[in-house]
Amino acid sequence: MISVTEARSRILAGLTPTAGETVSLMEALGRVLAAPLTARLSNPPADVSAMDGYAVRAEDALVGARLRLIGAAPAGHPFPDRLERGETVRLFTGSVVPAGADSILIQENATAEGDGVVVNEATARGRHVRFQGADFTAGETVAKAGQRLHPRLIGLAAGAGHPWVAVHRRPRVVILCTGDEIALPGEPLPPGGVVSSNGPALAALVRAAGGEPILLPTVPDQLPAIIAAAAAARGADMLVTTGGASVGAHDLVQEGLAAAGLVLDFWRIAMRPGKPLMHGKLGDVPMLGLPGNPVSALVCGILFLVPAIERLLGLPGDAPLAEPVRLGADLPANDIREDYVRASLLVREDGGWAAYPYKTQDSGQISRLAAADALLVRPPFAPALATGEMVPAIRLGPLGF
Amino acid sequence: MISVTEARSRILAGLTPTAGETVSLMEALGRVLAAPLTARLSNPPADVSAMDGYAVRAEDALVGARLRLIGAAPAGHPFPDRLERGETVRLFTGSVVPAGADSILIQENATAEGDGVVVNEATARGRHVRFQGADFTAGETVAKAGQRLHPRLIGLAAGAGHPWVAVHRRPRVVILCTGDEIALPGEPLPPGGVVSSNGPALAALVRAAGGEPILLPTVPDQLPAIIAAAAAARGADMLVTTGGASVGAHDLVQEGLAAAGLVLDFWRIAMRPGKPLMHGKLGDVPMLGLPGNPVSALVCGILFLVPAIERLLGLPGDAPLAEPVRLGADLPANDIREDYVRASLLVREDGGWAAYPYKTQDSGQISRLAAADALLVRPPFAPALATGEMVPAIRLGPLGF
Repeated sequence: MISVTEARSRILAGLTPTAGETVSLMEALGRVLAAPLTARLSNPPADVSAMDGYAVRAEDALVGARLRLIGAAPAGHPFPDRLERGETVRLFTGSVVPAGADSILIQENATAEGDGVVVNEATARGRHVRFQGADFTAGETVAKAGQRLHPRLIGLAAGAGHPWVAVHRRPRVVILCTGDEIALPGEPLPPGGVVSSNGPALAALVRAAGGEPILLPTVPDQLPAIIAAAAAARGADMLVTTGGASVGAHDLVQEGLAAAGLVLDFWRIAMRPGKPLMHGKLGDVPMLGLPGNPVSALVCGILFLVPAIERLLGLPGDAPLAEPVRLGADLPANDIREDYVRASLLVREDGGWAAYPYKTQDSGQISRLAAADALLVRPPFAPALATGEMVPAIRLGPLGF
Repeated sequence: MISVTEARSRILAGLTPTAGETVSLMEALGRVLAAPLTARLSNPPADVSAMDGYAVRAEDALVGARLRLIGAAPAGHPFPDRLERGETVRLFTGSVVPAGADSILIQENATAEGDGVVVNEATARGRHVRFQGADFTAGETVAKAGQRLHPRLIGLAAGAGHPWVAVHRRPRVVILCTGDEIALPGEPLPPGGVVSSNGPALAALVRAAGGEPILLPTVPDQLPAIIAAAAAARGADMLVTTGGASVGAHDLVQEGLAAAGLVLDFWRIAMRPGKPLMHGKLGDVPMLGLPGNPVSALVCGILFLVPAIERLLGLPGDAPLAEPVRLGADLPANDIREDYVRASLLVREDGGWAAYPYKTQDSGQISRLAAADALLVRPPFAPALATGEMVPAIRLGPLGF
């Protein structure tokens, strides 16, 4: 059995980011840049006013002075002439500062009187001016390849003049669920059967991570059917299977995929929930075999499949962020397997969080996993922790999983 | 000027959740349940084995005993007969436990010998059995209305037998950007013009929050054009405008919408960035007027528009989560306006975070907002804080904004 960390780095080592594709900026939310974004113009494009007021020469705008109002320049309508000594031009937020002016007298500090403006409070050179390029300048790199496009970055890309962006193609992840006993929700259940939650849950996880899930029809526990299904993985960026990775006589996935040409890397890791994790390569296609148990499948999905999809997207594919959280209850010492303990988080009086591990950690209980706020990370042989001590926690909600 | 908190509660007060629509479970990621989900079956559907091994009567399975192997029951193929004293049936993970058996002897603790199985370690009644309904029982509510469907909850809905779910329709948010000086990226720029980042950024923010953005063609600073555009808001769940909410002579949005029938609630709040925030109702349509400045527009979008969309989705619409973070630099005392200070977060040695407020808080700099990790919340008249003290921080990355 290998460690969680070693398993993840072996999985990531075999992955290269997908090629780029061009998408409209309006469709780019959540996508990952495949190339840096260079500003096509400067922002502000010229020296502009940060306030509503008057363009002045600071040396003219002394308290009590009366300036001659020679025009108005709303945003988008720059003043065509040069401002000379003793003159002023009405400006608004975003207006271009006319040539000859060096500062803004805000309207709260001025009184308009016919064709003149009286200064009630002096201004200083450069005051309330947003200088050309203060935000970014033409040719500057405003975003790097490998950045995920959140709404603020989309705003920046727009402001830098990009109607289109090059992003990594969504990784195509083929999901293969096997089992004579499983049926999708709404389908007739075989005797002793269970409704498959793995297919829909893993498809959602792939989508949440930025991939494109392709859920194959459920495959029965028969070697030829598994071999046939393996062909559907051709051209995919990753093949994910569930179940059949263990040592049971009816766990035929490993056997079937081997017959289809799988080169196995490992198939067991020192982790709970989820010891039977398989990894290998089927032709050109990286393969990740998740446990069949729904709780193990999802936890392993979060720990291994999500980083793999991130790596395929051109992101680092780091382990999910674990942050220290104070324990609201005791935790026993851990054994040889790295444990991911389902827990709820409650806000403490000081605004921080307290973690309450569930007493029942049965990996058959998808309802508890669905309700959990966090996975508490317990390395192999971690000592017991008392209430009030800190434990690393993967907070599932903020990660979108 | 009203406070941020009052502004948000006034905005939320006028909103009712959208009606439900039925979507396939496979398309339901991120949607919000409009009705509770009731389990259509129990999980496990019967007493099943949690391990590969043998079904036994615990009282028979004493060390050294030889049990008679009368059959095998892979998952999905239940054993049809009753198990009698001294008998055993081969089972696998997920197999139904046959009538008469009460526990599982795991295969690691047994030796198969022809038609018999020798017990190497005793088991106990109920050992390694997952009992019918231990996860959930038919008729039980497994998810409440108002829960957002993350991948784990989609797994639970599947397991509970739901191929379809009722979710709140995505709120339709009409976005109206005005200004003679703005153009969308890739369009010809007018003299003194700037590329509009607000439209694409707010559309992405609406989408990230779970709404459906409808970006209207940019409207020039002319009253008739604004009045005409207002008609496009009919039937929307919300109208969002940018700019024109201030007191400048060319800030015509308020005037134009008033002419179109806007009933104004408020138009200024005690906040930085973003004093000119407008709220009202245009016929039946709630209206939110964001500042025109891109930084102010996005920060106000995060603080007011996102909660509004959440409320329309049947969620509470709370203020964005602010968590205490240790300051990596000093913060000055605050004035009358609640301040949202852009900052970066760096991991400290103990695994927690330290916040470093940007020295430049210019609301014209979209590049800095795009790079920020957090907004530090500074209530009105908050005292100065020294390095090492705690400050509430809205972490933008984990929220997806």
